[in-house]
Amino acid sequence: MLEKFIRTVKRHNMFQKGDGIVVGVSGGPDSIALLHLFWRIREEYDLKLYAVHLNHQFRGEEADEDADYVRRFCENIGVKAFIFSKNVSLYSKEKGITFEEAGREIRYGLFDEVMKKMNANKIAVAQNMDDQAETVLMRLMRGTGLEGLSAIDYVRDEKIIRPILDIRRKEIEDYCNEYNLKPRIDKTNLEAVYTRNRIRLELIPYIEKYFNKNIKETLSRTTNIIREDKDFLNIAAKKAYHQVVIKNNSDIRINKKAFEEKHPAIQRRILREAINQSMGELKDVQHKHIEKLLDFIKYGSVGREIHLPKGIYAVLDYDAMMIKKGKRKIERDEFEYNINIGETLNIKEDKAFLKAVVIDRKDIKNISKGQDKKYFDFDKIKSHLIVRNRRNGDRFTPFGMKGSKKLKDFFIDEKISREERDKIPLVCDGEEIIWVIGHRMSENYKVEKETKNVLVIIYKKYS
Amino acid sequence: MLEKFIRTVKRHNMFQKGDGIVVGVSGGPDSIALLHLFWRIREEYDLKLYAVHLNHQFRGEEADEDADYVRRFCENIGVKAFIFSKNVSLYSKEKGITFEEAGREIRYGLFDEVMKKMNANKIAVAQNMDDQAETVLMRLMRGTGLEGLSAIDYVRDEKIIRPILDIRRKEIEDYCNEYNLKPRIDKTNLEAVYTRNRIRLELIPYIEKYFNKNIKETLSRTTNIIREDKDFLNIAAKKAYHQVVIKNNSDIRINKKAFEEKHPAIQRRILREAINQSMGELKDVQHKHIEKLLDFIKYGSVGREIHLPKGIYAVLDYDAMMIKKGKRKIERDEFEYNINIGETLNIKEDKAFLKAVVIDRKDIKNISKGQDKKYFDFDKIKSHLIVRNRRNGDRFTPFGMKGSKKLKDFFIDEKISREERDKIPLVCDGEEIIWVIGHRMSENYKVEKETKNVLVIIYKKYS
Repeated sequence: MLEKFIRTVKRHNMFQKGDGIVVGVSGGPDSIALLHLFWRIREEYDLKLYAVHLNHQFRGEEADEDADYVRRFCENIGVKAFIFSKNVSLYSKEKGITFEEAGREIRYGLFDEVMKKMNANKIAVAQNMDDQAETVLMRLMRGTGLEGLSAIDYVRDEKIIRPILDIRRKEIEDYCNEYNLKPRIDKTNLEAVYTRNRIRLELIPYIEKYFNKNIKETLSRTTNIIREDKDFLNIAAKKAYHQVVIKNNSDIRINKKAFEEKHPAIQRRILREAINQSMGELKDVQHKHIEKLLDFIKYGSVGREIHLPKGIYAVLDYDAMMIKKGKRKIERDEFEYNINIGETLNIKEDKAFLKAVVIDRKDIKNISKGQDKKYFDFDKIKSHLIVRNRRNGDRFTPFGMKGSKKLKDFFIDEKISREERDKIPLVCDGEEIIWVIGHRMSENYKVEKETKNVLVIIYKKYS
Repeated sequence: MLEKFIRTVKRHNMFQKGDGIVVGVSGGPDSIALLHLFWRIREEYDLKLYAVHLNHQFRGEEADEDADYVRRFCENIGVKAFIFSKNVSLYSKEKGITFEEAGREIRYGLFDEVMKKMNANKIAVAQNMDDQAETVLMRLMRGTGLEGLSAIDYVRDEKIIRPILDIRRKEIEDYCNEYNLKPRIDKTNLEAVYTRNRIRLELIPYIEKYFNKNIKETLSRTTNIIREDKDFLNIAAKKAYHQVVIKNNSDIRINKKAFEEKHPAIQRRILREAINQSMGELKDVQHKHIEKLLDFIKYGSVGREIHLPKGIYAVLDYDAMMIKKGKRKIERDEFEYNINIGETLNIKEDKAFLKAVVIDRKDIKNISKGQDKKYFDFDKIKSHLIVRNRRNGDRFTPFGMKGSKKLKDFFIDEKISREERDKIPLVCDGEEIIWVIGHRMSENYKVEKETKNVLVIIYKKYS
């Protein structure tokens, strides 16, 4: 395994002799093996190693034991360890982001802090080949482009390195046994645990059995080819961007004629970068937004506007499309999010987390009841799940009723004030409302005798 | 559905007013709906329609009934039908290609023939959105690059069009019911039926249930984005090719310095195209061949050679790599094929077809016995399945024996002549021989009491 590690490190130029390397160590097999591998080559490559561990304060004693284990492990091999303890849960609530996002933000912040303090220059993290394969499948199933399919990068920003990305989880576990490292059981990979576990424990074994015994290697190889294709496209797009776009403070001006001469693959990337420049991030930008903009710049009429998330909007001029940041007054604050089964969604507008899972009917009794939880017949879902606030023309079939009524009339019957109405989140199956959160679920989705799969939606206010 | 059809047709510029269109019609729901849709718009767009049906002579009466149905259907709506009948099975044996390849070759030959005869200019075929999604998943699981992930093209060579590629199979079936078209049950899609059926009946429903209800639309969208990325890369590669490569008869000369200045994504495409130019096709060229060449041109020593399939080889000069077609004498004709579960493989060197399927232990009694069939414990397979002839150093554990022996000694014990030895195909699990075809299977892979999944390998000489 040491050979594989060195091969990956060399192929991707991960560090130079004499470098200082900050290693993120959760205490699980991956990060412990990573640290141990670095430790074995530290003299040959004259490396200065620093371990960073974050106690998430999430699983009480267990988390403390993880921290202790990392401290002792590092002491034993003589590597300086920085152990931090942060209330990730609190931080996530304060910033209105999910627990996973909060954990990542804090961790990388600490890595940077230690890197600067110790005058190091690289941050090593411990994703493996299984993580890579799972990520590709997850992204593919959710919908993605080249960006997503190229999955986890070996090197990012010439700073973050992933030296065990070509090594399988099984090999890492064997390595830990061989060297008697006794890692902690890895529970810190909290990101989309549900989806990832299904991919890991069901989907990949199924594919291995019936389609390709080496699916992990195959996917890893595919992402490596795709990553280079992506890289080439991004270089080309960057060059094109400066031929097409003029930035003036926060306003972005895209020259129509220059834009039209570019290839559609490049056009899409120019639009993404323009939004990125204006918005400061791309997190809430979806494929449909880019397609909308593409249509707009091609076929829209001069003077028209279209709206994008976070108050960004685009206006058409005679020879350009401008992307601006919204001083404009929006009539009503609309929000809409896709629900991915198994993931926690942060609905900032209502300061709440939403999570959807699917369970077998027979497991329903194992779940505690509560007002913040509703059950639906999953097989009645026809389209994709979203959560949004009301739109004009919404209709609803309240539980216990036959036939639908206007949502507005339902609100009136329920004596909900106008101000409140705009804030109430609605879970929908495509166009159809299945749950008016806090009020009523739909008759059309109730769990019945024949129900096999139950969709459980949990909704929790965090303030 | 007519609207969706027209939208796809317009978006991809599939035809012009006044065009003559040859429609491939198997008689199944997809092709019947496709023909019916064209028929409905024929006057508005001034189209001349011709239906082409091929009777594969494979399922006797049923195939004749399919042909009759297509003839009557076309008569009813007043579309000229060309019904052909060919012995596809015989053709496949004569040409040493699989039944599926033979069917495709003959069909497209006939489409071209009718197109020329009737002075038409387009060929319409009936793949749908489900086919698209299945193809992406199949390719992804087998390993592929952008080329494969972009899956089925809407338009190919400005001639072959696929106007129902955005429509789901279910919609097509509903359409056939609505218009009472009574299509034949589609059995003609013989390509990789086993793998495809598993994807269609198990994998996609599983993904729909646990990950994404709209996986088909998602995959279709992904392929559409990727197709444009691929297109851009191919345009760039084509341009680069002519800056780097000089062709002299069948010899291809790749300038090292010019090559090295290109991006790796482009370098790979230049190498593929160079092999294509030299070999005339890319069918047997695998990812590993391209990687080998890439390493060779970068790090190889002047004067060295490496071999590629079909007698193609590469030689290094001081300032160039040459790709040549082999007058050179090869010491022994080596062959090697990957075995994909569920597909028929043609082993030309031994004039035989090989097919591998996996079944449940309990279904073993439903399968007829025979010398050309062997059973293995599928769960004992550790790597990927290949079939090849012998290599130096091969070892083998014959059925009923403990411990391995040299394959050479096995051949001597079995009194197999030297000439014969090179021809005998060996099924291998990675490096390990599991079946010396025609002689003995391996002790290490036998079906035992605990065996759950049985790998059945069928091997049939066709001459």
